[in-house]
Amino acid sequence: MAMMDINNMIVIIDAIGAFVFAISGIRMAANKGFDLFGAFVVGFATAIGGGTLRDLLLGVTPVWMTNSIYVSMTILALVFVVVFRKRLIHMNVTFFIFDTFGLALYTVVGIEKTLAYDFPWWVPIAMGTMGGAAGGIIRDVLLAEVPLIFKKEIYATACILGGVIFFICDSLGANQLVSGFVCAGVVVVSRVLAVRYGISIPKLKKED
Amino acid sequence: MAMMDINNMIVIIDAIGAFVFAISGIRMAANKGFDLFGAFVVGFATAIGGGTLRDLLLGVTPVWMTNSIYVSMTILALVFVVVFRKRLIHMNVTFFIFDTFGLALYTVVGIEKTLAYDFPWWVPIAMGTMGGAAGGIIRDVLLAEVPLIFKKEIYATACILGGVIFFICDSLGANQLVSGFVCAGVVVVSRVLAVRYGISIPKLKKED
Amino acid sequence: MAMMDINNMIVIIDAIGAFVFAISGIRMAANKGFDLFGAFVVGFATAIGGGTLRDLLLGVTPVWMTNSIYVSMTILALVFVVVFRKRLIHMNVTFFIFDTFGLALYTVVGIEKTLAYDFPWWVPIAMGTMGGAAGGIIRDVLLAEVPLIFKKEIYATACILGGVIFFICDSLGANQLVSGFVCAGVVVVSRVLAVRYGISIPKLKKED
Repeated sequence: MAMMDINNMIVIIDAIGAFVFAISGIRMAANKGFDLFGAFVVGFATAIGGGTLRDLLLGVTPVWMTNSIYVSMTILALVFVVVFRKRLIHMNVTFFIFDTFGLALYTVVGIEKTLAYDFPWWVPIAMGTMGGAAGGIIRDVLLAEVPLIFKKEIYATACILGGVIFFICDSLGANQLVSGFVCAGVVVVSRVLAVRYGISIPKLKKED
Repeated sequence: MAMMDINNMIVIIDAIGAFVFAISGIRMAANKGFDLFGAFVVGFATAIGGGTLRDLLLGVTPVWMTNSIYVSMTILALVFVVVFRKRLIHMNVTFFIFDTFGLALYTVVGIEKTLAYDFPWWVPIAMGTMGGAAGGIIRDVLLAEVPLIFKKEIYATACILGGVIFFICDSLGANQLVSGFVCAGVVVVSRVLAVRYGISIPKLKKED
Repeated sequence: MAMMDINNMIVIIDAIGAFVFAISGIRMAANKGFDLFGAFVVGFATAIGGGTLRDLLLGVTPVWMTNSIYVSMTILALVFVVVFRKRLIHMNVTFFIFDTFGLALYTVVGIEKTLAYDFPWWVPIAMGTMGGAAGGIIRDVLLAEVPLIFKKEIYATACILGGVIFFICDSLGANQLVSGFVCAGVVVVSRVLAVRYGISIPKLKKED
């Protein structure tokens, strides 16, 4: 696959990722009785929240402020939810698949973006995980709900696992492209397997 | 009207805006049983939260860190709420009016501040809206409530509308002063008309 | 006491502070039924949230991105809570003491870090208070609860008091080391006395 094709593929997954992230926010906003504006903000925050937090911490301009794809995809997602409202529930498997690809891509993007700076190894992993998973936390805070990913399924943990694998590949001499692909593969496979076999992270026991 | 007068007017509206924004936060904190410190923080966050988020995203020093007016106005608002507690409810129309002027000013300030940088057109509109309306979202997050502006009335949408009009004026050749005045006017008028005639943004339908 | 000893002491209190802050977050996450990942994030956010907000506002790199102690202490805290779960409740006094030392240190660190820049006097006090107390607010937001420190006990107010005393010492000609020690002492003593004698900040009355 030529470099050009990879770049095109990244642009497409990025857009689809933003789209399904926004849809998850907009659907939850709709079920809370939000209006169109509220739904837009929650959808947008879900799509760009993780990357924005990452970019603020890195001290760089948040990516949505220079690239129009995130605003456009959120508007498209809003129209999509309004039009296909009754059929959305039948698309959950499709959403799951694209959400997982988006998660994987945002993880790799977060890691590679952070590698451009001189931070210790846990920072790129944290930034990759944030880029992938923090949007969902911000969505839930805006909905005044306990963040879903703190209680359910393997989600952010797949990003952390992918991040660790990235650094193992790197230390074995792989280049960033290969490490990135392996990392993304690990995120996708570990999330899919976790959901398929009902694997989740142990809960902490309550004190009483 | 001379330039000097306009500047004075802006300083005064800015201070009054911070004051009524802080009051809205403090009143809601009081009704949740917060102590004086908690009420101060919620009031302050309501007054400066939107501008602070905007400034962090723009990569500039938040305005309250160099201008003492916001801390002073929050303290004044706290004293005001304590002293006039029982009479506040009779001032709701007054608060509404000044809140709307504050909203309009913060929108224009956010747009014009962002224009100093080289961002695409939707960023100034987003920053104007954030400067005006995000403080109320942060207030509601601190109160562990669903943000009011996601469900009720025209509020942030008036800022978006004002922002779009700003750019229409701009593209018609108006200077920033004129565009700013027209934008502020649109924010004020659209919010007042919306409340007067009970116009609100359509809610999304729930899936079931 | 030599300078070297003071520096060592600061490193140790910093680490212990992060540890007990993280423990407070992890325990509350456990009681909400969070999984290990969720508990880690909440613990970490409690430990570093205040300092991170402070550093973002100051425009500097958040301290946990260059110093491994905060990640390590959060992991250690997670193991500690899992292993000693049933005995934690008997350690509450110990936690209270170290939490108070951590609070005092983070307050002084926030003040002195901010003094390196040219901000008006209320900014260092705000940054000291934020460094000490904002982590607990972020923790409660992530738990979808009303922030505890807005309703209960003297906590952030001890930081504000310490900050004011810092500037009084400073204006009397004391150097930063002395002002810092006095400030830390005031934070510790005022919090301990407040808890010992049940002193709390007056609540605002509700409007009805």
